Amino acid sequence: MTAVPDPQPTTPLEPADQRRAVAESLGADDFKALFRGHPGGVAVITADAGDGPVALTATSVASVSADPPLLIFSVSATSSATPTIMAADTVVVHFLDVHDLDLARLGATSGVDRFADTDAWSKLTTGEAVYHGVRAWVRCRIINRMDAGGSTVIAAHALQASINRDVAAGDPGDALVYHNRTWHRLDEASRIDGPVR
Amino acid sequence: MTAVPDPQPTTPLEPADQRRAVAESLGADDFKALFRGHPGGVAVITADAGDGPVALTATSVASVSADPPLLIFSVSATSSATPTIMAADTVVVHFLDVHDLDLARLGATSGVDRFADTDAWSKLTTGEAVYHGVRAWVRCRIINRMDAGGSTVIAAHALQASINRDVAAGDPGDALVYHNRTWHRLDEASRIDGPVR
Repeated sequence: MTAVPDPQPTTPLEPADQRRAVAESLGADDFKALFRGHPGGVAVITADAGDGPVALTATSVASVSADPPLLIFSVSATSSATPTIMAADTVVVHFLDVHDLDLARLGATSGVDRFADTDAWSKLTTGEAVYHGVRAWVRCRIINRMDAGGSTVIAAHALQASINRDVAAGDPGDALVYHNRTWHRLDEASRIDGPVR
Repeated sequence: MTAVPDPQPTTPLEPADQRRAVAESLGADDFKALFRGHPGGVAVITADAGDGPVALTATSVASVSADPPLLIFSVSATSSATPTIMAADTVVVHFLDVHDLDLARLGATSGVDRFADTDAWSKLTTGEAVYHGVRAWVRCRIINRMDAGGSTVIAAHALQASINRDVAAGDPGDALVYHNRTWHRLDEASRIDGPVR
């Protein structure tokens, strides 16, 4: 299976097909508008393939299966951290809440040394960088990769985790959400208890 | 590339390696606790492979690339809609806000006819089912699939979209978030403007 977005025709397209091929792909601006209104949880992913640690902030982390414990995320071809994540066997996914907002911003800022504050992180015995004090982190082994338009979708198997701030059933905790280029906090006031029309 | 979570050894494991192989996978309960505190945007995905439409609510929809316009989502092996989505060439991803909460609940409820209210949806000329009145929807062609522990990660190319309720830059709109088995609404009050400690 390949990741070619549009099958390449083996014979030249007729004019009507050419128009259809052009029309049959949404423009980048319209696509961004769809996702601008789509909120996401916030994670920072670290990896070290032997040349030092990298980190990036991602809103694409999702659970795929609990047994086996598998998650996915995607990495953009344009991120400086991507080559290292692609070369690594393991990653650490940090699940952030509002107390971790500085780290979320750090992982989303280009051109800064994300490991300059040596008090903020340490290395696991297995070599990966872990930031201190985050809500939770999980060390994962990369088990599969899928190309998608230059970016890569990564599936990873959860190996070991640390939960520093657990959330009781139904409780908002101090959840952090990224939405429309803005950070939001979930709390009792944001909760929808009744029907919404 | 395969989706085997743990490589199978070609020679029998020594006792110490056996213990390590067992320990090196996070338990399902710990894994669920990680994601219980991880909020997500809400989408309903429909597909029709020729045997009638199916629909399911997903919080795994993420943007992978804007040019080409690609998104991903995962479907669980346990969902009744999954076989149809796996057999389909195209899907419609509906991006929901709080006004679409009834649809979010419908797509998440087992054992109900999600198309019983024939006023609530119609068929596109291309055959897919689209629910009326949602914040936005996008018709996509499936371009790649990746196995992950029985579930499947799907990459799709956005073909055409309709945005009924656009969100101005930085504005919360009426965003809907699913978190810790509860629905939440983003608004001006949930917004974090200053540093959070």
